[in-house]
Amino acid sequence: MSAQNLRINGDRLLLRLMKLAEVGAIDGGGVCRLALTDEDRAGRDLVAGWMRELGLSVTVDAIGNVVGTRAGTGEAKPVIIGSHIDTVRTGGRYDGNLGVLAGLEVIQTLNDAGVLTGHPIAVAFFTNEEGSRFAPDMMGSAVHQGALPLATALATKGIDGASVGDELNRIGYAGDAPVGALRAAAYLELHIEQGPVLEREGLEIGAVTGVQGISWTEWTLRGVSNHAGTTPMSMRNDAGYVAAEIACFVRRLAREYGGSQVATIGHVTFAPNLVNVIPNHVVMTVDLRHTDEDTLQKAEKATADFADATAKAEGVQVARRTLARFEPVDFAPEMIERVERTARTQGLSVRRMPSGAGHDAQMFAPHCPTGMIFVPSKGGISHNVREFTEPDQIVAGANVLLEVVQQIAMAD
Amino acid sequence: MSAQNLRINGDRLLLRLMKLAEVGAIDGGGVCRLALTDEDRAGRDLVAGWMRELGLSVTVDAIGNVVGTRAGTGEAKPVIIGSHIDTVRTGGRYDGNLGVLAGLEVIQTLNDAGVLTGHPIAVAFFTNEEGSRFAPDMMGSAVHQGALPLATALATKGIDGASVGDELNRIGYAGDAPVGALRAAAYLELHIEQGPVLEREGLEIGAVTGVQGISWTEWTLRGVSNHAGTTPMSMRNDAGYVAAEIACFVRRLAREYGGSQVATIGHVTFAPNLVNVIPNHVVMTVDLRHTDEDTLQKAEKATADFADATAKAEGVQVARRTLARFEPVDFAPEMIERVERTARTQGLSVRRMPSGAGHDAQMFAPHCPTGMIFVPSKGGISHNVREFTEPDQIVAGANVLLEVVQQIAMAD
Repeated sequence: MSAQNLRINGDRLLLRLMKLAEVGAIDGGGVCRLALTDEDRAGRDLVAGWMRELGLSVTVDAIGNVVGTRAGTGEAKPVIIGSHIDTVRTGGRYDGNLGVLAGLEVIQTLNDAGVLTGHPIAVAFFTNEEGSRFAPDMMGSAVHQGALPLATALATKGIDGASVGDELNRIGYAGDAPVGALRAAAYLELHIEQGPVLEREGLEIGAVTGVQGISWTEWTLRGVSNHAGTTPMSMRNDAGYVAAEIACFVRRLAREYGGSQVATIGHVTFAPNLVNVIPNHVVMTVDLRHTDEDTLQKAEKATADFADATAKAEGVQVARRTLARFEPVDFAPEMIERVERTARTQGLSVRRMPSGAGHDAQMFAPHCPTGMIFVPSKGGISHNVREFTEPDQIVAGANVLLEVVQQIAMAD
Repeated sequence: MSAQNLRINGDRLLLRLMKLAEVGAIDGGGVCRLALTDEDRAGRDLVAGWMRELGLSVTVDAIGNVVGTRAGTGEAKPVIIGSHIDTVRTGGRYDGNLGVLAGLEVIQTLNDAGVLTGHPIAVAFFTNEEGSRFAPDMMGSAVHQGALPLATALATKGIDGASVGDELNRIGYAGDAPVGALRAAAYLELHIEQGPVLEREGLEIGAVTGVQGISWTEWTLRGVSNHAGTTPMSMRNDAGYVAAEIACFVRRLAREYGGSQVATIGHVTFAPNLVNVIPNHVVMTVDLRHTDEDTLQKAEKATADFADATAKAEGVQVARRTLARFEPVDFAPEMIERVERTARTQGLSVRRMPSGAGHDAQMFAPHCPTGMIFVPSKGGISHNVREFTEPDQIVAGANVLLEVVQQIAMAD
């Protein structure tokens, strides 16, 4: 059965988005549903209920991932539409939620139209994608795809001292489905961009090419604390000055490398942090990202070499530790191509682009054809109560998802 | 009467330094005698007692400055030897205390030798030089020399909410001598350098040429907080990056201007201060000092122009406010010459140098010939329990003081 002209019901999708946003609602239109809290449980109950209303077969695995599956006509592996419904502490309504609820809308649209597919279609929400309460982020999808041992994840203590395992039990989401039992024919995720590129370029759809590699390093610089008035410039060991040079260097590096290279100094603390005392102890973080692993390694080395040389010249001691390191993830070319072509066919403006943020999709990319669809974020704002995507843009993204899912699910 | 070969009693001076250091002693060999606390009272009582033992006529003025005067043979104005005995919270034994106790040692040496002088010689300690409990610093000498109204000083609230006036009454040091009644023929102050220059150059005495002008500015930079991964470099308004450029600029400026120019970024705070978020709010301080007012103004303007241009290019808002501003103070050439020549005559190594820190002497400089004698600070360390000056260096400085005081006091 061909269903190329099928379109999702935008009002229905938006209504579910608003209903889910009422769970854990906070001032300013935002949402707080930290993973495995009472609010997360209420959100899970709501979405799992919708899954059942749509006739999906719902399973919960041992790390709390919830999957609702619509049967296919054959025995093939399912096409998984996934994302997450946990949020950061002052999160928005769209991050993660959109991908899950658009999945339900795809199911309901197919149901309403009586469309059957060869492959089963599963909608999944994965536990603790945000990592705001329990580190690391993308925990549920990482366990699902074998990138993180289940026991390690369950033993993880959160910022409030509670463990993942205990909290899963407490909220009733320590399921009995074995993790990773579900192998996918393909994985798709619709997500807000969380950046400003599509908006600035006036585009409707991003065909995501992969996820940038991420390198987080914490630098600790130790100099000598001295009087700002009585210490000649030539006799200083100024940890703050070395930090400033590193910050300027990584900006120059990003400008020089160009392309997807980004570099951010987000965290800086000075001690003793007094106007008239040369700082002797500075902690700073360097966040480097690139789509190409070799280039990312080159950026890391250049930064380390520069920091070492600058610190040595200033008589400042340097120590560094890696806070996080993920290699870049490339999505399957045929999936990128499908998303791009489908958007064009639907009359939507589209560009290929990497994701600067991590997503559950990257855990699937090594194991099955994986694709992501981005829709614009107003002002590039995310992880913020002001997160917003226009209704038309949401509908456009969901329709691309519907079409791509059909193409793959029909294929068998 | 000629007394060129007179020398102070080093053991006696060191013993008084150690005894005063026992008042408010803290771990590590340091001292905490914040202005007008019980510890300050105890220190004042001890030193005023020594003044009386030496036969000095002791007065306390309305801001609590204590002056002990040894009569001269004539009616001339006194030579004042001054400094302070209050300390910072984790202070050392030498800062201020040395100048006052060396003054007492000069008196006792003259007494023992039966030397009479034309001018009276007064030893003074001024209230709240440090400014650690009550702002501004150099309060007592500023009131004494008319640079700060008495009523303003008395009404000043401290970090603990207490007022200067109330605390003076409480500790019994709201004196009845009118402030500023005492006009000086000359003012002299022996002080530790509080910097590394003399030690690094292997010198014993600094003939202080004046006090650097001080410019403290607080800069507030407001950018836009965005995702470190998803926001392209070209779309950033990174307040932290602008701060780093300013920090690198003032270092280049100090290198380029050379001479006495120093520039310090001592205080920096980032918000939200997260590894993966572009900072949208940075507060930083810039401390610029120079011995020449025109050059200091040029440095201020260059920094402001650079900050404005850099912020504008990055789309970051800039606000600044002045935290402190003192013009440079030049000491009288004949006093600098006297200190330098006397040190050489005594076989001591000496250099001319500006003071990078503020001192009570600068309040006297506009009104009478004023000079300062520096002795080395081990490691350049001050405002620290590890503050240290070698006994030999202390004795050398006190002997220069003795000789210069005699030269001036004899002259009438």
